[in-house]
Amino acid sequence: MAHGAGGKASRRLVEGLFAPLLYPGSQEPLNDAAHLEVGGTRIAFTADSFVVKPLRFPGGSIGELAINGTMNDLAVSGAKGVAITVTFVLEEGLAASVLEAEVRAMSKALKKAGAVIAGGDTKVVERGKADGMYITTAGIGTPLPGIKVDARSVRPGDKILLSGPIGDHGITILLARGDLDFEADLCSDTRSVLPLVEALAAECGPGIRWMRDPTRGGVATALNELARDSGLGIELLEEEIPMHDAVRGACELLGLDPLHIANEGQFLAIVSSEYADIALNALQQTAGGEEARMIGQVQVEPANAVLVTTRYGGSRIVDMLVGDPLPRIC
Amino acid sequence: MAHGAGGKASRRLVEGLFAPLLYPGSQEPLNDAAHLEVGGTRIAFTADSFVVKPLRFPGGSIGELAINGTMNDLAVSGAKGVAITVTFVLEEGLAASVLEAEVRAMSKALKKAGAVIAGGDTKVVERGKADGMYITTAGIGTPLPGIKVDARSVRPGDKILLSGPIGDHGITILLARGDLDFEADLCSDTRSVLPLVEALAAECGPGIRWMRDPTRGGVATALNELARDSGLGIELLEEEIPMHDAVRGACELLGLDPLHIANEGQFLAIVSSEYADIALNALQQTAGGEEARMIGQVQVEPANAVLVTTRYGGSRIVDMLVGDPLPRIC
Repeated sequence: MAHGAGGKASRRLVEGLFAPLLYPGSQEPLNDAAHLEVGGTRIAFTADSFVVKPLRFPGGSIGELAINGTMNDLAVSGAKGVAITVTFVLEEGLAASVLEAEVRAMSKALKKAGAVIAGGDTKVVERGKADGMYITTAGIGTPLPGIKVDARSVRPGDKILLSGPIGDHGITILLARGDLDFEADLCSDTRSVLPLVEALAAECGPGIRWMRDPTRGGVATALNELARDSGLGIELLEEEIPMHDAVRGACELLGLDPLHIANEGQFLAIVSSEYADIALNALQQTAGGEEARMIGQVQVEPANAVLVTTRYGGSRIVDMLVGDPLPRIC
Repeated sequence: MAHGAGGKASRRLVEGLFAPLLYPGSQEPLNDAAHLEVGGTRIAFTADSFVVKPLRFPGGSIGELAINGTMNDLAVSGAKGVAITVTFVLEEGLAASVLEAEVRAMSKALKKAGAVIAGGDTKVVERGKADGMYITTAGIGTPLPGIKVDARSVRPGDKILLSGPIGDHGITILLARGDLDFEADLCSDTRSVLPLVEALAAECGPGIRWMRDPTRGGVATALNELARDSGLGIELLEEEIPMHDAVRGACELLGLDPLHIANEGQFLAIVSSEYADIALNALQQTAGGEEARMIGQVQVEPANAVLVTTRYGGSRIVDMLVGDPLPRIC
């Protein structure tokens, strides 16, 4: 299960098996979407599979997640999604109303994102084989002008921005499964981050070095990947990291680190220091970005690692997610 | 299960649920890949999920099928695949060697097709789900110059070409499951059809009206869709349809119609009558196209239907696949 959790084992799988066979010789860092030249035009291209359990949860559902997840991967790569393909693997006996609800959710999310469905496919597998449905979306988009997202362009002194509170999605899913005797007034943060990315691009395009949406594996995994890809150190200020009390409480009770919990509607941006205030202001002035914060900075040390300075002045190294405390959250 | 079989129920699902919600107001016939304008360039875009059981079978495996299936959808839409995304849903406990074998098969198929992997995703689900692995591929491509594939351009008198013998894939999968006390020296026909499509495009581009690869639902379903989309009738000459004896024998024993059996390395082309001989010759002169045949023609009657003239001079209407005699063949 850990190989699907988006953390250390996932990265090992990609670096140890997929990349050597599928991209022999490539030295490019891994991004959320590839930008490639097709017929003389730059196109961004990405894909994700969704196996979230349960299919519906407070604040969203698998269909909506499948659209926004792929649109967000395009957005944080510096592109605006244009078209998407959708494929379903359906479990035999799935109620038509359940499928219809998800198609409606997708349609609504697409309209909001200003993208179209280019096509898709449906397979049906026997009872017990697919938990209702799995959805895979692939998306293509056009680069936002004036932005380049590249871990290798990150420099010591750059600032780290976060678009809003962390952990809402992962903890919401955990609670929605009903395995815990614990209730909280919490919703998934699933949404399109494109309006926030566009605001950032408009105000401080040249200052943007890198972006990522911290989904599986959370903020800690995303920033550990950046630390490794850039060879630099990341310092986070714990007290600056926005978080709802319900998330903090659930994590304390369960012994989870909120920095490892998945988000579906947030993103991290590394911005050069001279643009940092403008960037933070651009996010906070955009609807949905009011809770954005500057949560730390890039340093020379500790190289390849993420250091958290706690609210009491101590510090700790936070690794990528290891294992999978919360499987099947997207 | 029938909703995933690619026949009548699948079409009802698409026309009754997906299309009205996802493409409101569209009158375009459904094609294997969408051609759309992105950043000023025409791009072909398609996706397919693969849930074939077993994962490996004589002549191929799920990984190779996932690459060729998507590249073929692009090819028969009149495009050359350029880049592909791959997402895996893996079953917990899957042997690394099984995954590695499929990644190797994909790498080999990609190299042959001259395309690259743009990215992907991996999810892991619990034991008992996903039968080892499900794979979804999405592909983008550039239009082959001088070809337009459109069911509405088909005219009475046009000829129907088929690239080679039918039914090998479906019957191979059926036998590979070992449920039948029946053996045959048969391999899946899985392969890239692009070299054949390119040969056709080079020799008779303006004569090509429509192409399709008759996968799930077979030749009968693909041509019934064409009959409906064009409002015309399709006449097939049974004795012209190439078929291996093992496929004919298995179908007779099992009461299956070979016209409903899935293929993974063949395609149908509708060509205007003045180009028909040139087109057939172009296919037969290309490696892998030696067994191509002209199998019938387009007529005014029977409108919206497919009529097969049997080898004894009788005739029968062949409908789309109804139900699913062979589930999970791709």
